[in-house]
Amino acid sequence: MKITDINITQIAVGDPPLLNAAGLHAPYALRIIVEIITDSGITGLSEIPGSEKIYKALTELKSHLIGQDVFQLHTIKTLINQKFGERDDQRGVAPWDQRLLVHLFSAIEVACLDCIGKKLDRPVVDLLGGRSRNKVPFSAYLFYKYEGAGGALGSDKDTEASGWLRARQEEALSPDQIVDQAKAMCEAFGFQSIKLKGGARPPEIEYESILALRDAFGADTPLRLDPNAIWSLETAIKYGKKMEGILEYYEDPVRGQIDMALLSQKVDIPLATNMCTTSFEDLPASIRLGSEHIILSDHHFWGGLRASMELNKICQTFGRGFSMHSNSHLGISMAAMVHLGAAIPHLDYALDTHYPWQADEVIDGGKIPIIDGFVTVPDGPGLGVTLDREQLQKLHKKFLACGLKERNDEVEMQKVDPQWHFKLQRW
Amino acid sequence: MKITDINITQIAVGDPPLLNAAGLHAPYALRIIVEIITDSGITGLSEIPGSEKIYKALTELKSHLIGQDVFQLHTIKTLINQKFGERDDQRGVAPWDQRLLVHLFSAIEVACLDCIGKKLDRPVVDLLGGRSRNKVPFSAYLFYKYEGAGGALGSDKDTEASGWLRARQEEALSPDQIVDQAKAMCEAFGFQSIKLKGGARPPEIEYESILALRDAFGADTPLRLDPNAIWSLETAIKYGKKMEGILEYYEDPVRGQIDMALLSQKVDIPLATNMCTTSFEDLPASIRLGSEHIILSDHHFWGGLRASMELNKICQTFGRGFSMHSNSHLGISMAAMVHLGAAIPHLDYALDTHYPWQADEVIDGGKIPIIDGFVTVPDGPGLGVTLDREQLQKLHKKFLACGLKERNDEVEMQKVDPQWHFKLQRW
Ligand SMILES: [Mg+2]
Ligand SMILES: [Mg+2]
Repeated sequence: MKITDINITQIAVGDPPLLNAAGLHAPYALRIIVEIITDSGITGLSEIPGSEKIYKALTELKSHLIGQDVFQLHTIKTLINQKFGERDDQRGVAPWDQRLLVHLFSAIEVACLDCIGKKLDRPVVDLLGGRSRNKVPFSAYLFYKYEGAGGALGSDKDTEASGWLRARQEEALSPDQIVDQAKAMCEAFGFQSIKLKGGARPPEIEYESILALRDAFGADTPLRLDPNAIWSLETAIKYGKKMEGILEYYEDPVRGQIDMALLSQKVDIPLATNMCTTSFEDLPASIRLGSEHIILSDHHFWGGLRASMELNKICQTFGRGFSMHSNSHLGISMAAMVHLGAAIPHLDYALDTHYPWQADEVIDGGKIPIIDGFVTVPDGPGLGVTLDREQLQKLHKKFLACGLKERNDEVEMQKVDPQWHFKLQRW
Repeated sequence: MKITDINITQIAVGDPPLLNAAGLHAPYALRIIVEIITDSGITGLSEIPGSEKIYKALTELKSHLIGQDVFQLHTIKTLINQKFGERDDQRGVAPWDQRLLVHLFSAIEVACLDCIGKKLDRPVVDLLGGRSRNKVPFSAYLFYKYEGAGGALGSDKDTEASGWLRARQEEALSPDQIVDQAKAMCEAFGFQSIKLKGGARPPEIEYESILALRDAFGADTPLRLDPNAIWSLETAIKYGKKMEGILEYYEDPVRGQIDMALLSQKVDIPLATNMCTTSFEDLPASIRLGSEHIILSDHHFWGGLRASMELNKICQTFGRGFSMHSNSHLGISMAAMVHLGAAIPHLDYALDTHYPWQADEVIDGGKIPIIDGFVTVPDGPGLGVTLDREQLQKLHKKFLACGLKERNDEVEMQKVDPQWHFKLQRW
């Protein structure tokens, strides 16, 4: 099953003004939709974070991939590494991972697995060893935010209750507003765990927000706080001590494995990461230092679904927990996350997803439903999702119109506060 | 693709009187041939070490597996673990691994992957991410031995040169005889690396044998010595020091990770293991202690081909080398090893195989050729081998006639030397 063509389409997706350690989400999030077309008439899909760098590299790569067999993923990985350098870039200091090779390979691998699944008339989960579960738990993902829902308003009438449509518009800067957001999100999607994106407001407010969530939802609802590595060790210890017995896990409160390891000795809460340990190369030091208890995988930057299965085995082998990180994404990434989440033998925590925040969609049938906090493995072969070409064109036009070329939350924040600058450590 | 029946056939295979730390090989090695029959008419094959314990467990398992989908390997693994206990047995102190669960799952997984490959009309290597290489390097595997070729003489006329047929018969107890064995084996199969099974003769003789091999083959032919954990730390240090710069690696000279770690601090030769670190549970301590540089995988006791791919990733991640261990085996196991060996991205050393020692075969077309020390990935879908039913029946009759129920090299040795007893540490 040889690759005969690859369509690479840049799209922009409406995204609310969500606050985080790096600044503010732009009104549009950028994604790239990849379609791999094969000589058997089968087409495979994938979705990855969008940036000019990734788009250009994928476009350059295309001619090298034409003629390759979709099964020869080791060959394709070697080819990508040879073309763009054996060592990947640094992930960068922002909350999102900025490496090239892993994103490129993920884009190709997921689309190839979609092709193989379709050829076999089997879901992608069955290419990963089959189902360890039929539906995959997700967590609510709360953000401090300014008023507004981002982009041109989408058409999310079907799957989302009106309370959430309103809440997604509303400002959320105080603990009470965060509780309102959480209630609306949990009512709409049935989430049974709650994550608060931190690092955006002063630590005292974020801590008070966690206390307010605990009061509102009770001790049975697991809570997580993710300051995106922007707190000092001192601050992380101070608030960590207060949140012992309250947080399910404490996600990247500080920057780097050394400070995570020091923090883990001081605070009795499991530490999770998608910023301090983000690659296979990072794992030996993480294990040696004991810097994190939980690795938040992300197939987009761990290099695909099979690599994430391997990461899951490493976590199981070395006594680390496993869950998933998310950036703003649409249904193709959601489907890939769900197939992976259904396959992994060792799943300890509900996964992250930004999915409720994005009104736009690019797959047929609109957004994949989240029911009682779970997403069921899509029916149908491969990823089980198909492309809505009208939507793809619409979102591509949004991309062309919005003028964004890469994610830059600092620039976006400066539109609100011209004096604002990203800091490696803010509090 | 649901399992409708499973044929489990015990066979006995002619095996020469090879010496090792546990005693002497019986005239027959026991294997179990598994055929998984599906409702799509596709049949999958596998081969595992034979013992009464494994045979009984497989037979008990059969009714639980009927109706299972061959893709649902995570479900099947859970089912096996639930039925036979979550914790596997201990591997035992003999050179071969005696655990149950990993062998059972390997038997089922390989046969299921054979089915899936046939369904897709693709070789098993393509289910593991595709080829990292087209042919897989193997090493010569020398044994001290008594005269004789084991069993009733087989029909190995096709693929093996007459020099090797003679050498396989001959006694090999001295360094000179080992060199003769090596020359015959390398001439017949073109091996470019040489392993000597040690732990059978006094260390001085084994060391002299290594020196004689070095003299005969030169510094460009990598040499390995495997005393099967029967040497004291003192002995291993003494001879290790003398073999620095001579051995490619030093395989399980001592017993247990602690002594391996101590040895690795004293002797400048990479240490390899299939006895001290043999499971995922063993890996954290191996990494922490730095007890071994090279893990010798074996899909039969690491729990299948996908688990071996995961082990390969762990080795790559933590800077450990990877190669493969072997017991006496036939062509189905050889095919599985070759598909795995072709898939793994990270292969540092030529693999072990006992294959030249077994004259019998159970696959159509006779023995898989080893040419210039390499085995090419079999053509055809799945494992690419089919069962010779006449041979299967013949070898099953040998099993019934030979009266062996499990491998016991001590009992076999006592037929030669009634006073002989296995010792955890002999020299
Ligand atoms: Mg995070
Ligand atoms: Mg060994």
